[in-house]
Amino acid sequence: MIKHFLSLSSLSSSEISALLDRSRFFSQNHKNPEQVHHLLRHKIIANVFYEPSTRTRCSFEVAAKRLGVEVVNFVPENSSVKKGETVYDTLRCLESLGVEGIVFRHSDDNVFDQLKDKIKLPLLNAGAGKFEHPSQGLLDLFTLREEFQRLEGLKVAVCGDIKHSRVAGSLMVAAEKFGMEIYLSGPSALLPKSQKAFVREVPFDEALTKVDAVMMLRIQLERHESLELNQESYHRDFGLTPARLAIMKKNAIILHPGPFNRGVEISDELVEHPQSRIFKQMENGVYARMAILEWALNQKR
Amino acid sequence: MIKHFLSLSSLSSSEISALLDRSRFFSQNHKNPEQVHHLLRHKIIANVFYEPSTRTRCSFEVAAKRLGVEVVNFVPENSSVKKGETVYDTLRCLESLGVEGIVFRHSDDNVFDQLKDKIKLPLLNAGAGKFEHPSQGLLDLFTLREEFQRLEGLKVAVCGDIKHSRVAGSLMVAAEKFGMEIYLSGPSALLPKSQKAFVREVPFDEALTKVDAVMMLRIQLERHESLELNQESYHRDFGLTPARLAIMKKNAIILHPGPFNRGVEISDELVEHPQSRIFKQMENGVYARMAILEWALNQKR
Amino acid sequence: MIKHFLSLSSLSSSEISALLDRSRFFSQNHKNPEQVHHLLRHKIIANVFYEPSTRTRCSFEVAAKRLGVEVVNFVPENSSVKKGETVYDTLRCLESLGVEGIVFRHSDDNVFDQLKDKIKLPLLNAGAGKFEHPSQGLLDLFTLREEFQRLEGLKVAVCGDIKHSRVAGSLMVAAEKFGMEIYLSGPSALLPKSQKAFVREVPFDEALTKVDAVMMLRIQLERHESLELNQESYHRDFGLTPARLAIMKKNAIILHPGPFNRGVEISDELVEHPQSRIFKQMENGVYARMAILEWALNQKR
Repeated sequence: MIKHFLSLSSLSSSEISALLDRSRFFSQNHKNPEQVHHLLRHKIIANVFYEPSTRTRCSFEVAAKRLGVEVVNFVPENSSVKKGETVYDTLRCLESLGVEGIVFRHSDDNVFDQLKDKIKLPLLNAGAGKFEHPSQGLLDLFTLREEFQRLEGLKVAVCGDIKHSRVAGSLMVAAEKFGMEIYLSGPSALLPKSQKAFVREVPFDEALTKVDAVMMLRIQLERHESLELNQESYHRDFGLTPARLAIMKKNAIILHPGPFNRGVEISDELVEHPQSRIFKQMENGVYARMAILEWALNQKR
Repeated sequence: MIKHFLSLSSLSSSEISALLDRSRFFSQNHKNPEQVHHLLRHKIIANVFYEPSTRTRCSFEVAAKRLGVEVVNFVPENSSVKKGETVYDTLRCLESLGVEGIVFRHSDDNVFDQLKDKIKLPLLNAGAGKFEHPSQGLLDLFTLREEFQRLEGLKVAVCGDIKHSRVAGSLMVAAEKFGMEIYLSGPSALLPKSQKAFVREVPFDEALTKVDAVMMLRIQLERHESLELNQESYHRDFGLTPARLAIMKKNAIILHPGPFNRGVEISDELVEHPQSRIFKQMENGVYARMAILEWALNQKR
Repeated sequence: MIKHFLSLSSLSSSEISALLDRSRFFSQNHKNPEQVHHLLRHKIIANVFYEPSTRTRCSFEVAAKRLGVEVVNFVPENSSVKKGETVYDTLRCLESLGVEGIVFRHSDDNVFDQLKDKIKLPLLNAGAGKFEHPSQGLLDLFTLREEFQRLEGLKVAVCGDIKHSRVAGSLMVAAEKFGMEIYLSGPSALLPKSQKAFVREVPFDEALTKVDAVMMLRIQLERHESLELNQESYHRDFGLTPARLAIMKKNAIILHPGPFNRGVEISDELVEHPQSRIFKQMENGVYARMAILEWALNQKR
């Protein structure tokens, strides 16, 4: 049976740890072609993005090319989608073309339910549905582990539109598997309802004093007009500012999956602050995705 | 003189047979880089698609990459076309850039008439004009020959919007060259007028009882409002259904160039029926296009 | 400190001459993989085009692939730009992904002022701002030097919308460095105001009798409605016609950066005239860009 990379929840802790170990290997060797270029040489993957994305698509593409993988970009707008083709038929077509994997983004929450048992080559979730964004989850874990040399017992605050965030979804799955504690903050309308034991809803300024890392999420103000949010008041109540950073532990780090809005959820001057790992996360994303591609494409079939 | 791949009608039977033999070689070796990756290594082609296409563009791109060819995607929307550049000048520019071939799709029926003697590098017709779609024609022939070990004497029914189909155009050219018989069915307004001796117009249910293969074509209902067609009545009169499959020979096969509309020209449950070769055609398309690329790019100049 | 390729004005004459020498090497060896494919093998660049371009993007892409460089195409429309990300943050993200260079086009005149000291990997100006288009400038110089075996003392007429032309901008920078004389012609509203000593404003028909080369520029009629220009009168007053070519030196050459409008700034029959180097310029563009990529990506850091 083919293994897809659909969610962190479907992987065991030891599988995730193995991916983190490979991410570390790639962080040390990604620009050494002798070490990595042969690993998946001559394989071909298709990027299939029904929703736009720069960061994730380019990150997978760079990761693929470092490993010797060729990439075919399938752009749904210019395509059979206009002629009414289903997602299944499009993916089945790409499978027929003989590509070795499909990096996939789609807005439908349950798109994989109909696909995962019928598509016979690895699907890699690059942000499908509203529940998980597992490659982002893996790079966040990798960033935390590299920083603190452990995951167990780490405390992470998440602030922003958590209810609609697949990034937060994957982080919470990982927290459960690795014994991390999660503190949720933000406008109460944007917090998810039911919580697990390791997740607490805490006022932002209180959470900040306790955690090892804070994950700021982009607030999509255009979606929340009814909340009467505006950029200024959001920044005042829930933005990460120098004053708020000052109440955090001295070795705590700032995370953000990007793209970020300077001056809204995070102060301009904190984006590249010494405690920020925001661009480091993007860098780590390539290593994590190299590990994911290797795991998915090298499996015995 | 440079040879373009513009139509099956401009190739001899023995040239087509040689391409089919190479398609077979590639069907057996396409994933063996040692056998195929050096064949066109370091060559560069440009994909130039003035009309959208997923299937054909991606198929050519996968075929190219298996052979070691690099692909530059030229997207007319983002380009000099907006500034009024002619097709000739655009292709002449790509020729100046030194690419070794151009895979080309365009809506103009006679676009090649003005281009073929002036462009000095091979043009590969990926669906230009309304007359032929020769790479599809080659993959259809390959699929039939692999199935029946011969082409001569095969009977093929074609059903649907034949008048506007370049797929049907290439099939009829091939039928004449290889001694196949063609049965045409569909709404009479969508059948072409003059016919050659090896082509017969036959009621669909009668044709089905006689043939070795049926090629279903997508019906573009949006184009045919005046015919008062609707999906339901079209499916009843001209759709391939389990009941219709039952009156066919037991070893007859179902073909469709895709993309298809499940429940319109073909019943949902027949798309992946054991007698369907629809996804097999897509697979074979890569092998046929590898053969075409090799033929076009390896010619002595 | 990283060196960007932002303008000819920031390079010394000897640096430019070295680039022209390498362009010559690539003109002789570009299709010999043994000579060139290893030079930048396994490096990755990103194409980032905020404004559309066929010619320049494809030219850089072909140049890159000949040198063994992989290319990731970043398309701002399908991306974080929609979510309000700044140019700096987008480029910083690409830097974090580990690409080795960024080929960049943008409409903002001063975009590099904010970027050049903050981005730590080479930026290659593929047409940003209104002042220079340095890769076009280099290929124009290369075309002139290949033709006349020297640059010093050459006289070049430029005709058209010079005020808005970054191509003319780079040519004038190069003229100063290499002792060329420039004659400007065109509707007076489209000529730049202040001129340097080596630049003269001269009636078109007078300029043509004196020069070794004429650089015709595309006139963007849509931008100049207030000038009451129309294609016919423009062609009559400022178009390069066979009659005008007849008054030029017998060995003078015609240049145009493309895309061109046949019958407006240049007569249809002159585009591929024996004295035209228009398509030769496009060919030379690949060699010049190979030299630029090598210079930018092989620097010690």
